[in-house]
Amino acid sequence: MWDHIWINGQFATMNPAIETPYGALENGAIAVKDGKIAWIGSMDDLAGDPAKLAAKVSDLAGAWVTPGLVDCHTHLVYGGNRADEFEKRLNGVSYEEIARAGGGIRASVTATRAASEDELVAKAQKRLNNLLREGVTTLEIKSGYGLRTEDEAKMLRAARRLGRENDLDVVTTFLGAHALPPEYADDADGYIELVCSEMLPAIAAEGLADAVDAFCENIAFNTEQTRRVFEAARKLNLPVKLHAEQLSDQKGSILAADYHALSTDHLEYLEEDGVAAMAKAGVTAVLLPGAFYCLRETKLPPLDLLRQHGVNIAIATDSNPGTSPALSLLLMANMACTLFRMTPEESLAGITRNGARALGRGDTHGTLETGKVADFVVWGIDSPAELSYAIGGNPCQTVIYKGIERTPG
Amino acid sequence: MWDHIWINGQFATMNPAIETPYGALENGAIAVKDGKIAWIGSMDDLAGDPAKLAAKVSDLAGAWVTPGLVDCHTHLVYGGNRADEFEKRLNGVSYEEIARAGGGIRASVTATRAASEDELVAKAQKRLNNLLREGVTTLEIKSGYGLRTEDEAKMLRAARRLGRENDLDVVTTFLGAHALPPEYADDADGYIELVCSEMLPAIAAEGLADAVDAFCENIAFNTEQTRRVFEAARKLNLPVKLHAEQLSDQKGSILAADYHALSTDHLEYLEEDGVAAMAKAGVTAVLLPGAFYCLRETKLPPLDLLRQHGVNIAIATDSNPGTSPALSLLLMANMACTLFRMTPEESLAGITRNGARALGRGDTHGTLETGKVADFVVWGIDSPAELSYAIGGNPCQTVIYKGIERTPG
Ligand SMILES: [Zn+2]
Ligand SMILES: [Zn+2]
Repeated sequence: MWDHIWINGQFATMNPAIETPYGALENGAIAVKDGKIAWIGSMDDLAGDPAKLAAKVSDLAGAWVTPGLVDCHTHLVYGGNRADEFEKRLNGVSYEEIARAGGGIRASVTATRAASEDELVAKAQKRLNNLLREGVTTLEIKSGYGLRTEDEAKMLRAARRLGRENDLDVVTTFLGAHALPPEYADDADGYIELVCSEMLPAIAAEGLADAVDAFCENIAFNTEQTRRVFEAARKLNLPVKLHAEQLSDQKGSILAADYHALSTDHLEYLEEDGVAAMAKAGVTAVLLPGAFYCLRETKLPPLDLLRQHGVNIAIATDSNPGTSPALSLLLMANMACTLFRMTPEESLAGITRNGARALGRGDTHGTLETGKVADFVVWGIDSPAELSYAIGGNPCQTVIYKGIERTPG
Repeated sequence: MWDHIWINGQFATMNPAIETPYGALENGAIAVKDGKIAWIGSMDDLAGDPAKLAAKVSDLAGAWVTPGLVDCHTHLVYGGNRADEFEKRLNGVSYEEIARAGGGIRASVTATRAASEDELVAKAQKRLNNLLREGVTTLEIKSGYGLRTEDEAKMLRAARRLGRENDLDVVTTFLGAHALPPEYADDADGYIELVCSEMLPAIAAEGLADAVDAFCENIAFNTEQTRRVFEAARKLNLPVKLHAEQLSDQKGSILAADYHALSTDHLEYLEEDGVAAMAKAGVTAVLLPGAFYCLRETKLPPLDLLRQHGVNIAIATDSNPGTSPALSLLLMANMACTLFRMTPEESLAGITRNGARALGRGDTHGTLETGKVADFVVWGIDSPAELSYAIGGNPCQTVIYKGIERTPG
């Protein structure tokens, strides 16, 4: 007997094997058992009275259901915030002046180092509530504002706690190679040595990271330094991903493809050689329209090339204190349509199926299929396109996490 | 004795007479009596024990408080939605094809005419809930998708009902001159005659409109037709406002200034002669970054000229099914900063003090001052700049409407 069945719904399964748009299944039902999807199909194919098939029956009354949302790229845990810098810049203070005064990413590093794990959790929880309310059930969180072993570990412990303390699947990423800490101001190679020989092994020994990331850019680390980080990750059997091609084409995506990265992220300056390498290695492209919007970037990521080469495209918030203080994944889906000209179906795939793929969870999450984890969302909408059409609204009605209705926060 | 006092708060009063940024009052208290602000000031100036001064005491514990938010330009009541068109366009269908198939504003007119008043209220309520949740206490709603007397009246009755059925001050605007209905396809002058001689008098007789608006643009009505609408409004003693200079400089703002309009709205193509006329006549500029964003407009409204001439600048959602399906006023404040380079303080003034001015409510709403209506919001933020810094989050904790805590919807 199933634990719970939801009947009379419309399902955007996002299952690519179903050939309707959105993998849509009209007038269907979904049943869960032990936190997994035990059955999904048409009401007509249901073998009998729902009340005899499941311990509990809920009537969706025609509502639309999608997979739980997946935000596959965030920096949600950090100390302080940078609203003051945002305000100063808009009042005419230059980036240089702000940097001289200890601003920019350095301000976040200072505040994160100064914060306790409890403080980091409390601040991130407030931000997280926004994402939970709109149906996010899987969330990636990166380190990268500690930049020394104890503080990177503190960030990742805070991230793990957010997963334990919420009905939420948190995936953690070690991003020691995010920026150069003040202690290594002129010694990027020395810092990378620290990342590879001390930080990453310690983080891995404590089981704090599900993957390893780096920022490969002319203002951050070069491809050779990135390669050293990837080698260290490989030794520890940790998958890699990369902040790549955001401000210039460093060919980071080609390097990442060599290491069979889960994803490369940002990609405004990605060219066809990188796209082809990603396609061949099965790397997911993670596009971050919130950062594009905040930076008033005008160079669009190469959508047509990504489509032509069949690269899977995910969309995420990049939630971070500097370049994307974004707290809505649905808004990112709208920006993917409005700014990147993605279709609503591509957008929804980006925050479900392909978000899961970018986290190496494609087999267990991101679509509504028998056997997958029973994470799904019931929406107050008339068509799936409304999820990316509306700007800043939240039509989330009910979130089911591992088969159980999440109580609203 | 006061009805209720909130103590130990930080107040962004937005009162221009207080010379701190945001008119900020730190460590203050606010007291209400009969729905009005009876007292606001520093805790030090409080004449005695709060529990003896007011029937009820709430401790804000240092939280920030702002005036209730004012969304001074919306088309929130309409039938259907246009998510299908949004999706078609992103799948490569041209505007022309969509228009030939009865799409665009015509689709909204057809759906609005077909809907009952109850249906319009129910659909708008779902959208409205998003705005209520983030602290909107005053909301303007326009007609303009009925385009014949009975349907324009139906829209405005629906708008009035939304005001009665929520803790919300709804201000209505008759926008008969929004578009040409199919019955008058080639006869704009004939339609304007109908608007002036039949529709507007009927709407006014039923007390359905607080103001009169028109769309003055090369794709809508010209300045002479707009003048006729304004003349008709003047005869009925109704204030006017105008959709102006959105796609081209029609000099609509100069005409509106002649009629002492409450506001002119959009204004991307406004030039200095219009700005000067607005300043002289005390017309508020209403900027609509959601429409700018949706249309991927690149021409910015003339912020520096508006500042130099001392024109008050409001920000609104323009919530409508076609060019701005926006359901967050805080997001519009962020877009005003990010896209228009307004400061966070200007942005917050835009959705409080100047929003109220744009509705002719400057004397009673929009700032926290003794004697004004006690509409205010308690936020989970550390500084007022966070309200426009975050993208898509909602830090609203409590909304007080006419002195009473609104129960969350
Ligand atoms: Zn990032
Ligand atoms: Zn409008």
